[in-house]
Amino acid sequence: MDLGLLYSGGKDSTLAALLLEEFYDVTLVTGHFGITDDWKHARETAGDLGFAFERLELDPDVAHEAADRIREDGFPRNGIQQVHQHALERLAAAEFDAIADGTRRDDRVPTVSRAQAQSLEDRHGVDYVAPLSGFGRAAVDRLVDATLEVTVGPSEEIRRADYEAELRAIIADEAGPEAIGDCFPDHDQTYVTGVRDE
Amino acid sequence: MDLGLLYSGGKDSTLAALLLEEFYDVTLVTGHFGITDDWKHARETAGDLGFAFERLELDPDVAHEAADRIREDGFPRNGIQQVHQHALERLAAAEFDAIADGTRRDDRVPTVSRAQAQSLEDRHGVDYVAPLSGFGRAAVDRLVDATLEVTVGPSEEIRRADYEAELRAIIADEAGPEAIGDCFPDHDQTYVTGVRDE
Repeated sequence: MDLGLLYSGGKDSTLAALLLEEFYDVTLVTGHFGITDDWKHARETAGDLGFAFERLELDPDVAHEAADRIREDGFPRNGIQQVHQHALERLAAAEFDAIADGTRRDDRVPTVSRAQAQSLEDRHGVDYVAPLSGFGRAAVDRLVDATLEVTVGPSEEIRRADYEAELRAIIADEAGPEAIGDCFPDHDQTYVTGVRDE
Repeated sequence: MDLGLLYSGGKDSTLAALLLEEFYDVTLVTGHFGITDDWKHARETAGDLGFAFERLELDPDVAHEAADRIREDGFPRNGIQQVHQHALERLAAAEFDAIADGTRRDDRVPTVSRAQAQSLEDRHGVDYVAPLSGFGRAAVDRLVDATLEVTVGPSEEIRRADYEAELRAIIADEAGPEAIGDCFPDHDQTYVTGVRDE
């Protein structure tokens, strides 16, 4: 069965790929709005890990709506959630038997409720699976430590390909770089550099 | 990391074991109340699949309370839920770094909420993981078809080791065999007989 997994190059979506690869033919799929080239970081990591990779074109209007929402809210949660739902809809419409993402049990964003999952499945005739949704933060961190080589750094410096990079670029373009600090909390991001040797 | 997985010999808990074995040292653990010998079916399947196996002693008082509840309700859901929570508490108190069960996204029973999961983790200092909780019924069925050899039959004939067998025995003992039909709906159960060759 062919499965497309929404992929950022971060530890969660990489761990999800490793959990699924025993059971599915996994393609790592990175959504992009055509605003920055950050998706290439995910392609590079996918290649290093030996996974097939595809780009998924997302609607730039959704990115601009999400950026507006983030500036209004003063925090990124709701905007990121909008973008994630849009990406899942696009992925569900592509040619996969099953789709997946790296959402965890304890995540505040993005979240996919059981009703949203079933709706996605019924409307598109695909299985939606969230292999990390039964794992809490501590369990994921322990599995990552045991399995992956990761780089950790501040969000703005780490090379990865989640939605934040393009949304930050829009906000910087519209409201100046200083607006980013008003909307996004400082936190460290991780980027996967490889799988540990046994 | 040592992980104990609540195991019935059925397809869900077997699939959960296969998902986890890449990341944990998995022991299949079957709860029993000392009422019937049905746990031996799970031990046999665990051995066939090459997993370590342990019995987990459960409190017979909990079984009798659950059987009373099932007779009062006229359906098994709440009684099974009581037993499952008791089994998770016992398992969390055992010597594992992580514990798990085979609950699925679309299951009505047993269910473990995020709050219950976090409480179990905090009180016992273990990770609780539910590897199938991000998979819907159709996705699980497709993975089972692709991965496992299973036998399907009516609940009362199939040899497996979920809580139902012992609860049925209590109810038959207390209220006669005809009481079982009043409390448990007719449905087919599955029992795993092996892993498919590639």
